[in-house]
Amino acid sequence: MPAFCAQRRVEFRDTDAAGIVHFSAFFLMMESAEHELLRSLGISIMDHGNPEQLTWPRVSASCDYLAAAKFEDVLTIEVGVGKIGNSSVDYDFHFAREEKSIARGRITTVCCHLKPGRGLEKQPIPDSIRDLLSKHA
Amino acid sequence: MPAFCAQRRVEFRDTDAAGIVHFSAFFLMMESAEHELLRSLGISIMDHGNPEQLTWPRVSASCDYLAAAKFEDVLTIEVGVGKIGNSSVDYDFHFAREEKSIARGRITTVCCHLKPGRGLEKQPIPDSIRDLLSKHA
Amino acid sequence: MPAFCAQRRVEFRDTDAAGIVHFSAFFLMMESAEHELLRSLGISIMDHGNPEQLTWPRVSASCDYLAAAKFEDVLTIEVGVGKIGNSSVDYDFHFAREEKSIARGRITTVCCHLKPGRGLEKQPIPDSIRDLLSKHA
Amino acid sequence: MPAFCAQRRVEFRDTDAAGIVHFSAFFLMMESAEHELLRSLGISIMDHGNPEQLTWPRVSASCDYLAAAKFEDVLTIEVGVGKIGNSSVDYDFHFAREEKSIARGRITTVCCHLKPGRGLEKQPIPDSIRDLLSKHA
Repeated sequence: MPAFCAQRRVEFRDTDAAGIVHFSAFFLMMESAEHELLRSLGISIMDHGNPEQLTWPRVSASCDYLAAAKFEDVLTIEVGVGKIGNSSVDYDFHFAREEKSIARGRITTVCCHLKPGRGLEKQPIPDSIRDLLSKHA
Repeated sequence: MPAFCAQRRVEFRDTDAAGIVHFSAFFLMMESAEHELLRSLGISIMDHGNPEQLTWPRVSASCDYLAAAKFEDVLTIEVGVGKIGNSSVDYDFHFAREEKSIARGRITTVCCHLKPGRGLEKQPIPDSIRDLLSKHA
Repeated sequence: MPAFCAQRRVEFRDTDAAGIVHFSAFFLMMESAEHELLRSLGISIMDHGNPEQLTWPRVSASCDYLAAAKFEDVLTIEVGVGKIGNSSVDYDFHFAREEKSIARGRITTVCCHLKPGRGLEKQPIPDSIRDLLSKHA
Repeated sequence: MPAFCAQRRVEFRDTDAAGIVHFSAFFLMMESAEHELLRSLGISIMDHGNPEQLTWPRVSASCDYLAAAKFEDVLTIEVGVGKIGNSSVDYDFHFAREEKSIARGRITTVCCHLKPGRGLEKQPIPDSIRDLLSKHA
């Protein structure tokens, strides 16, 4: 199965006084595209009030900037699922405007329980989720 | 007692492609100055894990923009406590750069319990907090 | 003609530690919906490098919060064009999740030239733009 | 000379619905600390209207998250200048809360002219700036 594809239009708040998209905005677009992928697979991202709810904090994030993006650009974001470990998942991102590469990024997340008042506890990735994610690996 | 005074330097991420501070950034500076005022009075803003913890969601927020602010400007933010109701508090803000008025804003907050899994429940403002806030009224 | 309608899904970065959408995020959604309305009318929002480019800084912004919104909520944003003055335009916003009102806001913008190195200069709204905006008044 | 040290208090807007600082907020703190280092050396970061103005867009940014940070945490940010190339500079960041490591990051910037209407043009780093940055290398 090919990579998952999302589209995002650059909003004005994504820009800065250099006239281009601020580098931090790419991390927000990555997270938003990751969540769109999870929704497309039927994986719940955060279910308030469920004591067994899984959540996916980040253990690392990186981005290489290849060309500037500007206000109102429509960016295509390819998301591929990389290595799936016992508890961690790598997502690889490629941003493009038409045929032009704009940025490449990676986010590594780790599967955790979020327990009210007790913080985050690392968990093995359930098999059902592992199988779903593997479709984009 | 005079209004409470905070200072904030405009960060690069506060700017947008028009070369000035984005209008939404003033709301972040207002909240940050409000929280600095509360800390100065010894009022806890959010205490994770305390089941009786109070929190202060906003019921309204507004800002009038008088002059543009730019990257690296150092802004003085005067915070005055306005009307204190049974559950609500008004904060009034005045942003200035040296002698020049930049913006005026208001935030109305309401005293609530934040209960895990049960959302926000409106509460009367405790007398101890009412007395402290009155120092800047 | 009815109000213009936009839809936005709440992203994770729109939330805060109280578990709900941060109040400032509504201002970003308002601006994004305003720009979607302008694009739908064929009005250029910002054209880098055009020395006669118009831009629309805000002179005031306000929001009343009626109910909390949460991560992944899909919000409908109705945008109406209010008073159109010589240089200023009021936009009125209504946020709803299904039939439930979430927030109401207003942004007042003013028509300006953005000249490199010279800042913002107020301009009368061109008749062509006034006519287009009136479709949603 | 030791690394440069900045301090930042976590603001409420830095948090998300998982109750911790959102991963993207670390990139904003890195940029803010980098700019504080540049100001401490007397290096102008962005001078509107100066046609020879240098600016420093990012070519890459990364962060490893070691422990969660929460609202109101006071973080110490050590900034070291790493490799200084012909046009590029690496900054290394270490976030700590008291003795506890919270995150490590790196930003690689490239020296550019920002010309109105012409975008960004890569430049060799001037010797005066190279000498100043070397103090924290």
